[in-house]
Amino acid sequence: MSNPFFKNCGPFKISELTRLIELKENSHDSDINILDIKDLNSSKKNEITFYHSKKYKDAANKTKASFCITYQNLKNDLPKTCVPIIVTNVLVCTSLITAKFYPSSINDEFDSKVKFIDDTKYKNEVKFGKNVLIGENVLLGENCSIGHNSIIEKNVKIGSNCSIGSNVIIRNSLIHDNVKILDNCVIGKHGFGFFPDKNSNLRYPHIGLVVIEDNCEIGCNSTIDRGSMSNTVIGNNTYLDNQIHIAHNVKIGRNSIIAGQVGIAGSSILGDNVKIGGQAGISGHLKIGNNVEIGGGSGVIKDIPDNSKVMGYPAKNFRDFLKENR
Amino acid sequence: MSNPFFKNCGPFKISELTRLIELKENSHDSDINILDIKDLNSSKKNEITFYHSKKYKDAANKTKASFCITYQNLKNDLPKTCVPIIVTNVLVCTSLITAKFYPSSINDEFDSKVKFIDDTKYKNEVKFGKNVLIGENVLLGENCSIGHNSIIEKNVKIGSNCSIGSNVIIRNSLIHDNVKILDNCVIGKHGFGFFPDKNSNLRYPHIGLVVIEDNCEIGCNSTIDRGSMSNTVIGNNTYLDNQIHIAHNVKIGRNSIIAGQVGIAGSSILGDNVKIGGQAGISGHLKIGNNVEIGGGSGVIKDIPDNSKVMGYPAKNFRDFLKENR
Amino acid sequence: MSNPFFKNCGPFKISELTRLIELKENSHDSDINILDIKDLNSSKKNEITFYHSKKYKDAANKTKASFCITYQNLKNDLPKTCVPIIVTNVLVCTSLITAKFYPSSINDEFDSKVKFIDDTKYKNEVKFGKNVLIGENVLLGENCSIGHNSIIEKNVKIGSNCSIGSNVIIRNSLIHDNVKILDNCVIGKHGFGFFPDKNSNLRYPHIGLVVIEDNCEIGCNSTIDRGSMSNTVIGNNTYLDNQIHIAHNVKIGRNSIIAGQVGIAGSSILGDNVKIGGQAGISGHLKIGNNVEIGGGSGVIKDIPDNSKVMGYPAKNFRDFLKENR
Repeated sequence: MSNPFFKNCGPFKISELTRLIELKENSHDSDINILDIKDLNSSKKNEITFYHSKKYKDAANKTKASFCITYQNLKNDLPKTCVPIIVTNVLVCTSLITAKFYPSSINDEFDSKVKFIDDTKYKNEVKFGKNVLIGENVLLGENCSIGHNSIIEKNVKIGSNCSIGSNVIIRNSLIHDNVKILDNCVIGKHGFGFFPDKNSNLRYPHIGLVVIEDNCEIGCNSTIDRGSMSNTVIGNNTYLDNQIHIAHNVKIGRNSIIAGQVGIAGSSILGDNVKIGGQAGISGHLKIGNNVEIGGGSGVIKDIPDNSKVMGYPAKNFRDFLKENR
Repeated sequence: MSNPFFKNCGPFKISELTRLIELKENSHDSDINILDIKDLNSSKKNEITFYHSKKYKDAANKTKASFCITYQNLKNDLPKTCVPIIVTNVLVCTSLITAKFYPSSINDEFDSKVKFIDDTKYKNEVKFGKNVLIGENVLLGENCSIGHNSIIEKNVKIGSNCSIGSNVIIRNSLIHDNVKILDNCVIGKHGFGFFPDKNSNLRYPHIGLVVIEDNCEIGCNSTIDRGSMSNTVIGNNTYLDNQIHIAHNVKIGRNSIIAGQVGIAGSSILGDNVKIGGQAGISGHLKIGNNVEIGGGSGVIKDIPDNSKVMGYPAKNFRDFLKENR
Repeated sequence: MSNPFFKNCGPFKISELTRLIELKENSHDSDINILDIKDLNSSKKNEITFYHSKKYKDAANKTKASFCITYQNLKNDLPKTCVPIIVTNVLVCTSLITAKFYPSSINDEFDSKVKFIDDTKYKNEVKFGKNVLIGENVLLGENCSIGHNSIIEKNVKIGSNCSIGSNVIIRNSLIHDNVKILDNCVIGKHGFGFFPDKNSNLRYPHIGLVVIEDNCEIGCNSTIDRGSMSNTVIGNNTYLDNQIHIAHNVKIGRNSIIAGQVGIAGSSILGDNVKIGGQAGISGHLKIGNNVEIGGGSGVIKDIPDNSKVMGYPAKNFRDFLKENR
C-alpha cells in the first residue's frame, strides 16, 4: 500500500525491533537496517512483514520481505530469503513494531497545527464558510466549497469541484473529484482496532487512509474510518445516505447505493453496483460480489456471490426470505 | 404543496421545457407559458404535472394541470384539459423540469450568506450562544434560544419558545412553537433521492420542506431530510430520541414516541399515537395507522393497520412474534 | 446516589410538596421539612422516596425515608417509620416533586455561561483547539487535550491524560483518567424520559450523571445520556465504537467492547468483559451478565446469564442460532 501521509521514522536495526517485542532468543546473522513494515504482498527486501494465519499461505510463499513476524508452526511457509521472527502473538508484535515505524498513526488527538483558512493560501482559492480550519499537508483542488466550522486536519488531499458541508472533520484522506461530503461527517479517524488488555487496551496503528473516488456523496452524520494496514475505499459514483458507518479497511466498489444507518464492519470488500437497504449490517472480513442487492434491515454474516439478492437476519436468498415470511 | 422557500424561476414556454427533455416530436398547438410544476393533486391550469404509475390513477383523472409528463400507456387516464407529454422515463424528465423551475433545490452547498447573529436584528430578540450563524430568509419567534455553533441557514421559520441545541444545522424548515431540537441535529437537507447513472448519478430536486409542529422534541445527532415534491412532517407533541433518521417526504402524526436509532425510509406515512421501539426500521412508501406500537428492532416492510402491535423482522403481530420465539 | 452537580433547592415543607401533587386529603401529623428526594435504598430520615412496583418490595421494606409516594395497594410494604403518600400515578408525582427540588435538571438548554477557554484558568493547563468553550463548575485534570469547537458545559469533571475530540459536547459528567472521547459525541444530556400527555409531554427530571471510568474510549458521533435518578456508567477500560447510543441509567462494566451503531435502552445493566457486535440492540431494564458475547445485529429482549454467547432477534443461544440458520 502507498502511504503518502504517515511519516516513517525508520530505518531501525533488526535487533532494535526484536528487543521491542522482548524476544529472548535473537540470533540473527547480521544486524541489518529494516526500512519499513508492510503486508506480505507489498513488502520488499530489507523490510519486515507478518504472517499469522494459514489463510495467507500463498502470499507468505512469495513474500519478498527480509524478515517475517510469525508463529513456529507457520515458519516453513516462508521462502528462504525471509527470516522468521517467532513470537507468541503475531498481531500484538506487529502492532508494536508498526507503532515504532509510525508513532503518529496510533492516536488521533485533534490537530493542533490547524490555521483558520483565512490565514492560508486557500483564502482566495476555495469558497468557504465561517470558522473553517486547515491543517498541515492539506491540498485542495479547484472550485471546492467548505462549510462552516469544518476542519480539514492534516494529511488530506481533496480534488476539484468538491463540496464539503458544515461541521465536517476530515483527516488522513484522499478525496477525488466532484465528491460531496455532507454535514457532521467524520472521515479518516483511526478504526476500532486494538488488542484487549485487562488494564488498558493496546491500540494498534492505523497507517491506512480513506480514499473517496470521483462523484461520491456521503450523507450527514456518517463516519468512515481509515484503514489499519490498507486503505478504506469508496468507489466512483457511490452514494451513501445519512448516519452510515464504514469501518477500517472496508472497500466499496463503484456505482453503489447505500441507504441510511447501514453499518459495514472492518475489512469487508464489496463489489460494484451494490444496493443496500436502510439499517442493514455487514459483518467484518466478508466478500460481497458485484450487482448484489441487500434488503433493508438485513444482517449479512457470510460472503454473497455476484448478482444475488438477499434479505433477512442472517441474510439469505430474497425469495426464500419472502416465502418463509409470508 | 405550498412552497414559501424555493424561488420559482419560471414561467417557461412549454417548448422550452420539452426541448429540455429532448423530446423528438413536439407538436403542441400553442407555445404557452407554464407557471409551475406540481403533483397531480395540487397542480392547476397553466402548470405542468407528472403521472408515472397506475397507483395514482384517481388523482390523474382529476388533475387540473394543463400538461402532464407521462407514459404512452397511462395517457388515457388524464382529462381532456391536460395535454400528455409522452416520455420514456417520467421521473427523470420530471426531475429535469423541476430543476429548471427550482435550480437552487438540487444541491445543498453550505449557505455562504449567513451572518453572525450579533450582526442581525435577532441580537436582542433571542438567547444565543457563541458563534451562532443566521442565513437569509430566517424568521425567529419570541423567547427562543439557540446554542453554540448552531447554523440556521436560509429558509427557516422558527416559532415561539423553541430551544435549539448546539452544533445544530437547520435549513428549509418550518418549526412551530415550543419545539426542542437537541445538539448535533441536521434538519432540512435534501433527501437521498437521485436517478442512478453509471458515470454520475442525477440528483433530483427537493422543493419540499421539513415541518416540525408544536411541542416536539428531536434528539441529539438526528437527521430529518426535507421532502422532494411534498413536505417531511413531524406532528404535534411527537418526541424523537437520539440518532434517528427520518427520510424525505415522511409524515409522522401527533403524540408519537420514537426511541433511539430508529430509521424511517422515504415517503412513509405514520398516524397519531404511534410508539416505535429503539432501532426499529420502517421501509419506504408504507402506511402505518393510528395507535400502532412497533417493538424495538423491528423491520416493518408492509402497511400496518390502526391499533396494531407488531414486532419482528419482518414485523408481524406481536403475540405471534412472542409465540414463535418462546 | 451522590449528586455533586444539580443544586437541591430544598428543604420544602411536606405540605408544600403534597399541594404540588394536588392531593385532596393531606392529614400529616406535623408539617416537617423534607430535605431531599431519593430512591428507596439511598433515602434517609426527613427525605421523601417513591415506590411504584412490587419488584422493589425488599427495598421498600427497609427504606429509611420519612415519606414515600406510593399506591394504596403497596403502602403496607413500607416500614412504620415511613408515611405513605397515596397517589394515582407514582411516577408523575415523583417527577413533579423531583422537579421542585432540582428545577435545573429538567431541560437542557445550551449553557449560556460558558467562556472561551482562553478566558479561563485552563488557558495554560490543557492543550486545546480553536473555539473551545468551558462552562461553570468544570474541573479539568493534568495533561488533557480538547479539540476544536468542543464545549465542556457546566458540571463536568475530567481527570488526567484525557483526550476530547473536536465538536464534542459534554455536560453533567464525571470523566476519570486516560479517557478518549472522539469527535462529535454528545455526553450527559438528559435521557429520553417523560410522561406522555396529549397536549404536551411532561419531562421528568434527570438528576443523574454520566460517569466514564479510567481508560475508556468513546467513538465518534456517539451519545451517552445522563441518568434520571441514578447515574449512567461506563466501566474501566471499556471501548465503544462509533455511532453508539447509551440511554439513561445504563451501567456497563469493565473491559467491555461494543462495536459500531449498538444501542442500549434505558436502565439496563451489563457486567464485565461483555462483547457486543455491531448494530446489536439491548432493550431497557435488562441484566446482562459477565463475560457475555452478543452477536452483531442481535436484539436482546431478556436477561442474559454470565458466560453466555447469544445471537439473533430475539437473541438466543449462539449455537441454536447457527443451527436454525444453517
